[in-house]
Amino acid sequence: MRTQRIRQILNAVLMLVLALAAGLAQAADALPSWNEGKAKQAVVDFVKRVIAKGGKDFVPPAERIAVFDNDGTLWAEQPMYFQLAFALDRVKVLAPQRPEWKEKEPFASLLKGDLKGALAGGEPAIVQIVMATHAGMTTEAFEKTVRDWIAAAKHPKTGRLYAEMVYQPMLELLRYLRANGFKTFIVSGGGAEFMRVFSEKVYGIPPEQVIGSTGKLKFELRDGKPVLVKLPEIDFIDDKAGKPVGIQKHIGRRPILAFGNSDGDLQMLQWTAAGSGARFMGIVHHTDAEREWAYDRNSHIGKLDKAWDEAKAKGWTVVSMKNDWKRVYPK
Amino acid sequence: MRTQRIRQILNAVLMLVLALAAGLAQAADALPSWNEGKAKQAVVDFVKRVIAKGGKDFVPPAERIAVFDNDGTLWAEQPMYFQLAFALDRVKVLAPQRPEWKEKEPFASLLKGDLKGALAGGEPAIVQIVMATHAGMTTEAFEKTVRDWIAAAKHPKTGRLYAEMVYQPMLELLRYLRANGFKTFIVSGGGAEFMRVFSEKVYGIPPEQVIGSTGKLKFELRDGKPVLVKLPEIDFIDDKAGKPVGIQKHIGRRPILAFGNSDGDLQMLQWTAAGSGARFMGIVHHTDAEREWAYDRNSHIGKLDKAWDEAKAKGWTVVSMKNDWKRVYPK
Repeated sequence: MRTQRIRQILNAVLMLVLALAAGLAQAADALPSWNEGKAKQAVVDFVKRVIAKGGKDFVPPAERIAVFDNDGTLWAEQPMYFQLAFALDRVKVLAPQRPEWKEKEPFASLLKGDLKGALAGGEPAIVQIVMATHAGMTTEAFEKTVRDWIAAAKHPKTGRLYAEMVYQPMLELLRYLRANGFKTFIVSGGGAEFMRVFSEKVYGIPPEQVIGSTGKLKFELRDGKPVLVKLPEIDFIDDKAGKPVGIQKHIGRRPILAFGNSDGDLQMLQWTAAGSGARFMGIVHHTDAEREWAYDRNSHIGKLDKAWDEAKAKGWTVVSMKNDWKRVYPK
Repeated sequence: MRTQRIRQILNAVLMLVLALAAGLAQAADALPSWNEGKAKQAVVDFVKRVIAKGGKDFVPPAERIAVFDNDGTLWAEQPMYFQLAFALDRVKVLAPQRPEWKEKEPFASLLKGDLKGALAGGEPAIVQIVMATHAGMTTEAFEKTVRDWIAAAKHPKTGRLYAEMVYQPMLELLRYLRANGFKTFIVSGGGAEFMRVFSEKVYGIPPEQVIGSTGKLKFELRDGKPVLVKLPEIDFIDDKAGKPVGIQKHIGRRPILAFGNSDGDLQMLQWTAAGSGARFMGIVHHTDAEREWAYDRNSHIGKLDKAWDEAKAKGWTVVSMKNDWKRVYPK
């Protein structure tokens, strides 16, 4: 009886503290790197609506699922996907153990420094490079190579670490959503095991909330020790129509907020939009040639064409990097 | 400046309240349906060690990943997997729309009430039944059939709803772990989309923390409305060596606690055991023919043979339902 009383009192105090803290958090600007404007207003309005208890758009915390594309949405993707830069660096590191690469494309061109020649083979060439650098080792060994690379490799144009080329306004948005009871997920065409190495540190998103493309894995006992070996075989491509599939396979619940930047995100945005109740669909539009890059309909990376048309037709929020963001990268 | 002060004070009060609440929670017995004994002691000791700040076995909350098999570990699995009971019920419901089933095994036997004859075809027969009842509809339509079934279908022996045949001591264990900062996951050979319909309500485990077997999905626009269609094609079998693979694909982090009940859980237990730091590996041993069922080495369902030997050799915790549990099902 006494214990129950104490519990009730503690609960009451806790509720009060949480309410006060929530009030304070709301009072401060949670999105300081966003310019005042339609995009920022749309996000804030949406969040306020879904957290308002008793309101017609209220969504219980467990259902506040927010999904984000990674390349071009949370971090930059020019002049090539950063994971491809990782793969190219790995080819150079591994080359001494693979003398046959000197005669074999796309590796031969790559090792001569001819990136354009190496990638002339198109997607099959890229798949070869990815398989040669992302398979044939244990998951633990792979994680270590990614950890070492992300800690040291720098972007050729900005000279920043790749992990410092994340978008400050999006980091604020992720935090703002979590502070309001959302569970934030990455849903990317990039490799799940690649992103998971740094997602928690860089985005505050734990590995189990990272959905991406995967290769097949094989469980083995090596000298009695269990390992998972990465096989050179594609398991799942989490892009385009694969994104809603990845969301269903992994989360099993429809998001109420989705953010992307290219046509590869269109189906994820459509899937999110088609749920009942309040929804938020956002697109990062790369309009800032000075601070970042400017590209859309005609870009070979991050092409934004059909998704842009649909955003305009359906009233989704299009964020202009140039106009809506005070800064692009963290200080 | 003033805001910061208020924040600091609020934080201090919050910490105090949390500390008091945690103290109270610990004081009460979190596992009242467990008899005092080695199994209960082993779990409690493990949890105390990994949450002790500054202790040599401390594990940060984000890494407190706990995985549980479902059939035979969290709920009963006799005389057949409950999901198979669902499939058989669905065959009867769907039969009027499928007149050809009258002539076609395993459906013909099944519709005549001859379950043994229907299952005589072994695994291929079961796969046919599962595909006929788990594919060819949208994910939303499937969810609805599971929701309706789980709300009404009763177990032939106990007369209980299937969702009431969960193990009370394991429900307490799940709650106890979560109260101590663990994230609890299901890792089951059963269908992910089947379990997710009731996992949150029954176990307090949200759909995104349910890993199971999956079928292929296809994204489609039907009259402009996006749907995911369940295809009659296996995507992933989350059993045996598939369990560590499923854990890696989905969580990307090695569990520190794993609970199973059969040889299908052996690789998951090995994978968990092989990590560094404190570990807990547990097996539910079905020893209670009176209150539940008694079976192990020679059972066709939930065979416990190799995993039992390894548990004995490695000192994993084997929970005897009969001796370690005060009660089996919730009141």
